[in-house]
Amino acid sequence: MKGKLIIIGGHEDKAGAEVILREVARPVLKGGRLAIITAATQVPEEVGREYTAIFRELGVRDIAVVDIREREDAADPSCVEQIKDAKAIFFTGGDQLRITSQLGDSPLFQMLQKRCADGALIAGTSAGAAAMPTTMLVSGNSDESSRISALGMAPGLGLIDNVVIDSHFAERGRIGRLLGAVAQNPASVGIGIDEDTAVVVEKNRRFRVIGSGAVYVIDGSTISYSSLSEKQPEGVLSIFDVRLHILSAGDQFDLAERQPMMRE
Amino acid sequence: MKGKLIIIGGHEDKAGAEVILREVARPVLKGGRLAIITAATQVPEEVGREYTAIFRELGVRDIAVVDIREREDAADPSCVEQIKDAKAIFFTGGDQLRITSQLGDSPLFQMLQKRCADGALIAGTSAGAAAMPTTMLVSGNSDESSRISALGMAPGLGLIDNVVIDSHFAERGRIGRLLGAVAQNPASVGIGIDEDTAVVVEKNRRFRVIGSGAVYVIDGSTISYSSLSEKQPEGVLSIFDVRLHILSAGDQFDLAERQPMMRE
Repeated sequence: MKGKLIIIGGHEDKAGAEVILREVARPVLKGGRLAIITAATQVPEEVGREYTAIFRELGVRDIAVVDIREREDAADPSCVEQIKDAKAIFFTGGDQLRITSQLGDSPLFQMLQKRCADGALIAGTSAGAAAMPTTMLVSGNSDESSRISALGMAPGLGLIDNVVIDSHFAERGRIGRLLGAVAQNPASVGIGIDEDTAVVVEKNRRFRVIGSGAVYVIDGSTISYSSLSEKQPEGVLSIFDVRLHILSAGDQFDLAERQPMMRE
Repeated sequence: MKGKLIIIGGHEDKAGAEVILREVARPVLKGGRLAIITAATQVPEEVGREYTAIFRELGVRDIAVVDIREREDAADPSCVEQIKDAKAIFFTGGDQLRITSQLGDSPLFQMLQKRCADGALIAGTSAGAAAMPTTMLVSGNSDESSRISALGMAPGLGLIDNVVIDSHFAERGRIGRLLGAVAQNPASVGIGIDEDTAVVVEKNRRFRVIGSGAVYVIDGSTISYSSLSEKQPEGVLSIFDVRLHILSAGDQFDLAERQPMMRE
């Protein structure tokens, strides 16, 4: 994958420094279209209007809201055309299963993958962030720490491999469900992104942190024992020897080497 | 320290299986006094009555509520006497600074240390748990991930060395502040205890998990980089290479060796 991803933990600053949305707008400031895909949300008109106003304020002139409400919209040639011409594509928040159930394997999604391979920027916030990996986190009772039964995963958009992403990461109990997801298969690195914080991924290999919060990276390759193997679906998960990194703005992480690098 | 500690994450089950409170009651079921210290709470009568009723239900006959409201109460010979004769001493929740500011260096506290050395059980829930170590966590904005500025610590009761304890651990953002506390001095192991979950510490060296939730153990000895040294008080903390364990009922942890052991 040649493209660049911006994966946002939700509630990005929309009125102050706007560090993250400026980064999303950057490729289209000197021309080119920004497509806003509102598939995740139940209130696409409101959300579309809100982001259009913000990005206009940031200097973007060509903005298309791609309003996918049913699966047939994702096959509509006029919607596909809007993605074809976009240099940056932004997924709003909402429900990640709405994104994948409506876009999965559609003509619009095929065009999205093509644009990504051609170097367009794909960005997503909250559900739009969670949907990006090959396998996405869809549920998990965040009131309970690492209960084996509480975890739900589903096939995601496949824009980035070998990661699991959770957003709004400062919220109650989110670390438990991400740890559970990583323990299921330590081949995936868990990335928990705070609100108003994002990771900018280059070439599916390395990312850099921007925004005001922290990014938690859970590396399960060091796990020496996990009780998942004991098949106690209602049990609380035990996991020993997780490697954990907390990154903040400017820090980088090499996904291939699983190595953090401090800001310079 | 010869004594045994039961350190409880708060909201221990008071009506169902009552695993944790049964463990607190165990040493005094065949005789001997249970002293309930309500120093942490602003509503000592209510809390004292509640726990008295529960422990009576569990079969404890000799119960004394030690109602410390001011520092002079902790010097009152009748209060000290109640601790002198106790085989088990239980600290309720509330505010950990109320415990240490009223009990610190008092005749009652000296008696408590003596009882602990003589093998009495000392238990505490929520603030009563957080107050146990030599250095205790007193604040920290749990809405923010690992902000350097958000962390407050103070001298605790000194009943256990080289640990920092946080309770109600499934709550929003608690892991961030415990990570921050461990990064300040990785000589301390961070122990984050979920509600209705406890660690039973034997001889200041090894603990076992009981209850329905998880216990997070943060070992900072492996930390390769922490931005604490950069003196950015308002910054978000970066911490690389933390070793993290998630333990559940039956699992043990050797504090001296920093090694988890799975349930048998």
